Amino acid sequence: MTTSTTGNWGRWGADDERGALNHLSAETVLAAAQSIRTGRVYQLGTVLHREGLPTLAHRGVPRRFTLLNHSDRGWFEGIGAPPELGWSEDVIMLATHSGTHLDALCHVDHGGEMYNGYPKEGFTSLDGAAKCGIEKTGAFAARGVLVDVAAHKGVPLLPPVAITLEDFLETLEAQGSDVRPGDVVAVRTGWLEHCLASGGELEFEQPGIGLDVARWLAEHDVTAVGADNSSVEVMPWDGDEFLGTHLELLVRHGIYLMEHLWLQELSQDRRYDFLFCVSPLLVKGATGSPVNPIAIG
Amino acid sequence: MTTSTTGNWGRWGADDERGALNHLSAETVLAAAQSIRTGRVYQLGTVLHREGLPTLAHRGVPRRFTLLNHSDRGWFEGIGAPPELGWSEDVIMLATHSGTHLDALCHVDHGGEMYNGYPKEGFTSLDGAAKCGIEKTGAFAARGVLVDVAAHKGVPLLPPVAITLEDFLETLEAQGSDVRPGDVVAVRTGWLEHCLASGGELEFEQPGIGLDVARWLAEHDVTAVGADNSSVEVMPWDGDEFLGTHLELLVRHGIYLMEHLWLQELSQDRRYDFLFCVSPLLVKGATGSPVNPIAIG
Amino acid sequence: MTTSTTGNWGRWGADDERGALNHLSAETVLAAAQSIRTGRVYQLGTVLHREGLPTLAHRGVPRRFTLLNHSDRGWFEGIGAPPELGWSEDVIMLATHSGTHLDALCHVDHGGEMYNGYPKEGFTSLDGAAKCGIEKTGAFAARGVLVDVAAHKGVPLLPPVAITLEDFLETLEAQGSDVRPGDVVAVRTGWLEHCLASGGELEFEQPGIGLDVARWLAEHDVTAVGADNSSVEVMPWDGDEFLGTHLELLVRHGIYLMEHLWLQELSQDRRYDFLFCVSPLLVKGATGSPVNPIAIG
Amino acid sequence: MTTSTTGNWGRWGADDERGALNHLSAETVLAAAQSIRTGRVYQLGTVLHREGLPTLAHRGVPRRFTLLNHSDRGWFEGIGAPPELGWSEDVIMLATHSGTHLDALCHVDHGGEMYNGYPKEGFTSLDGAAKCGIEKTGAFAARGVLVDVAAHKGVPLLPPVAITLEDFLETLEAQGSDVRPGDVVAVRTGWLEHCLASGGELEFEQPGIGLDVARWLAEHDVTAVGADNSSVEVMPWDGDEFLGTHLELLVRHGIYLMEHLWLQELSQDRRYDFLFCVSPLLVKGATGSPVNPIAIG
Repeated sequence: MTTSTTGNWGRWGADDERGALNHLSAETVLAAAQSIRTGRVYQLGTVLHREGLPTLAHRGVPRRFTLLNHSDRGWFEGIGAPPELGWSEDVIMLATHSGTHLDALCHVDHGGEMYNGYPKEGFTSLDGAAKCGIEKTGAFAARGVLVDVAAHKGVPLLPPVAITLEDFLETLEAQGSDVRPGDVVAVRTGWLEHCLASGGELEFEQPGIGLDVARWLAEHDVTAVGADNSSVEVMPWDGDEFLGTHLELLVRHGIYLMEHLWLQELSQDRRYDFLFCVSPLLVKGATGSPVNPIAIG
Repeated sequence: MTTSTTGNWGRWGADDERGALNHLSAETVLAAAQSIRTGRVYQLGTVLHREGLPTLAHRGVPRRFTLLNHSDRGWFEGIGAPPELGWSEDVIMLATHSGTHLDALCHVDHGGEMYNGYPKEGFTSLDGAAKCGIEKTGAFAARGVLVDVAAHKGVPLLPPVAITLEDFLETLEAQGSDVRPGDVVAVRTGWLEHCLASGGELEFEQPGIGLDVARWLAEHDVTAVGADNSSVEVMPWDGDEFLGTHLELLVRHGIYLMEHLWLQELSQDRRYDFLFCVSPLLVKGATGSPVNPIAIG
Repeated sequence: MTTSTTGNWGRWGADDERGALNHLSAETVLAAAQSIRTGRVYQLGTVLHREGLPTLAHRGVPRRFTLLNHSDRGWFEGIGAPPELGWSEDVIMLATHSGTHLDALCHVDHGGEMYNGYPKEGFTSLDGAAKCGIEKTGAFAARGVLVDVAAHKGVPLLPPVAITLEDFLETLEAQGSDVRPGDVVAVRTGWLEHCLASGGELEFEQPGIGLDVARWLAEHDVTAVGADNSSVEVMPWDGDEFLGTHLELLVRHGIYLMEHLWLQELSQDRRYDFLFCVSPLLVKGATGSPVNPIAIG
Repeated sequence: MTTSTTGNWGRWGADDERGALNHLSAETVLAAAQSIRTGRVYQLGTVLHREGLPTLAHRGVPRRFTLLNHSDRGWFEGIGAPPELGWSEDVIMLATHSGTHLDALCHVDHGGEMYNGYPKEGFTSLDGAAKCGIEKTGAFAARGVLVDVAAHKGVPLLPPVAITLEDFLETLEAQGSDVRPGDVVAVRTGWLEHCLASGGELEFEQPGIGLDVARWLAEHDVTAVGADNSSVEVMPWDGDEFLGTHLELLVRHGIYLMEHLWLQELSQDRRYDFLFCVSPLLVKGATGSPVNPIAIG
């Protein structure tokens, strides 16, 4: 990777593992809190179940196993619980990129390096990421902006099209929205609503942002970009550049990506700015986490 | 369970599955947002790893398995990725009550019934909870109050003691804090800091709230109660009533419980009120979810 | 269940958990060893992989996760391994009824009872079977008989048909085979070969034995019955009796069932009797085990 | 690895993935069957449970999760099962090197190569072993020989000692046993019996064979070597050569290793030769399999 394309590498030090989270500060959070006007809380995550969720085969479907329920009466008695008392417990197993999820900066590598030049060999089978694992990301809060291209252009954006910078800026203008440093930008294509309504099958061809939008977002120093599709970017890839938007945002600029965001209620309320909070599970060394972000409007 | 002890059952209708979340509204969220004064974001979840975390044996330790990393070069080529591009993925497996977690209203049952009288038999092995699963809880935001008993009384509260109502109210007064309807109350005992510092072994004997505190919290219509211990309540159980606080809060009043909250930074900043946001994973039918709550101070 | 239909219940004592394995003895094993004539070893299990295997959706596909490989160089060094030494490890996760498998006697219950009258409530979420779990079955060796109905009638038996007692006895006669007490009987329908050749999709409609064959096998005191289909019995069920053959053999008579047996090589060699060995994993409380049986011809 | 130390590499062709299994043939199986004299079947695998089994922390304990039991009444009805019919199912998850297990030839690598010179890079995170996975091993039958050093020297061999070639040959002679090409040799140290009796804790220091025994076994062209300890070889390593016996047998000679064999009953019966059958699960690409071998005496 040439110097000119390494974006934010080194910008926050050679040992930085947080990337665009460095755009956030107490001040940006205070400013973002000004977006709270109605007090309505929007939940942006999807239900996780073994059926009905678009999933890549090698990742497997989310699973929930019962550990304890009322059938375990003898076990409850064995630990001294009174006869009228019981409880249930379970275990979950799922790919970190299941359902609505947040990509850690260690997720993608290019030219042998992930964000900030960390070597891909640092991600091992047993322990995962030595650098830039999701536990380094952590929970964050920022100003969020919905860019409802689907509403502006018609829902959903099918056949799969790349959202061009023109589309994107037109939508922002129509909404009366702006994008500020540190923002979390959520792009609505309508794809997830279409997908879940038609059974949850994963289709490779999906609308998403094009490379010029990715570059514009990087230039505007956003913290994270999300969409209601499977890879933020259009598939097949814009300009035939495989995962080009992931490379531009996640790898070169340390900008976080979120996929399978549920944006329908924000769209219905035409709610374009909000306080955005996301809380990945702090799984040591993981490449991401399923999340259930909150937008407070 | 007699009528007199069923607390909030029926209060929000016979088909209610959300319990004390009914205390929340756009208005309470707007009011809670007034607690944001410094803009500092506190993360209340612990790192999840196969080592170093207090865990009950039957639940097992959290696990992360690598699905893809740089060793899968051939697979990347097989799907058409260019030679300089790769990525890593993983799968996680963990008990829903691992690390910092939120209990769903289906978690505990008494006299054959969970919150609002739903029968315990509704929790099946394959599908989990038909009623009051964590997907019915969902993400929420509320005013949060730290009740730092550990700081007030000396850290940590060892040997394990029950926090009495006197301790609790004294601490509130010393802090200049109050508890309002809809609040999320986080009680600091110092136990988790002590536990993690000494290797992460789970000890049964833990400080926690006593039954009179639980009753007071229920009367004050809080939404959720959390603590930096393994069961919110003191162990061994106050008054020898097995899981008595779970029964009072979760089962009788539909008040959510959170355990293994990380409260050290809030304590260090003497930050007693904040906007609290929590985002459980919406696992269909699950008894809870690991979470990583946010407090915005 | 009326007395007349409880078959072998009580035959080996009220506390028996091994059922038809009681037909086996040192003598039957010695006799079975007489079937070894060529020394060829046939492997009757299928490969387990996340793709290509017929599987019910709620069971999930078999999974293999890498625990350690060459990417974990640092970990190897940390435990003192010399630089030229390394190793790989993995974890597997699969339904006990995945691929070629053996049903434990606790697998099915009728009228609230499993084999020998043990109550279905004895199978709990946390610990599984208190009685008749697969660890009580254990490994065994017996005389095996292939009944190659597919070869006798034409391969595979499609559209799905019930193998009648007439078909079964005709095949035995054509082969010059007999069935003796304690035998393991393997019925070939051709279905599995057809299924794997056409991509591994599970089809509900499958050829298999009818109820009269099941009754005949029970009367002849066999130890186990296997087939190269998903339930030994024909689907849809013979006489519309849901799992009727499971009830007759497994529940009433304690006769073990094996599904997805790979019988092609035995068929090609027209090898109809052999020493049969099967080794379930002794998972405490489990309803069965994936197996890879051996036939020594 | 120098030519002189590569043992059996190339002996069965540059593309061989079965190693010492090439010693077996119909003739060796026929000869092995001559060891069947009493008809007693010995089961050499241990019970698999989340408790009581010696396990390395990174591998995790074996787990069994209930998929279906009597609590799933509604599900059974949903698929049309009559009210009196039900069943139970489960899922298992365990390290392939859990309990009694068989190592595949891909398990260990030295100088960047596994058996027969295959590169360690061929073992990837997603798909495991391209060469020498356990599905290439498969089930096999051979003459088995118990070498009961524990009985000969006193049980168990504590403090941990290396079994020298002198001990080994003395024991063979005292037993009146011999080792023939193709044999499976099971060495009893008494360790597993000691370990399980004292709670199942894994201790690093264990008795096992020394390097001279390993070399002798390789020279005698055995197929597999097992023991009732965790690594066949003594720990700490003989001559301070890390995993030296694994290198000598598994890597250089393609001789299979089995650990945690349960040999108590064979020892009690002083049964030194038998037909040995082992049936690994054919998990594609796996480094081994839990097994439950059979010895027919």
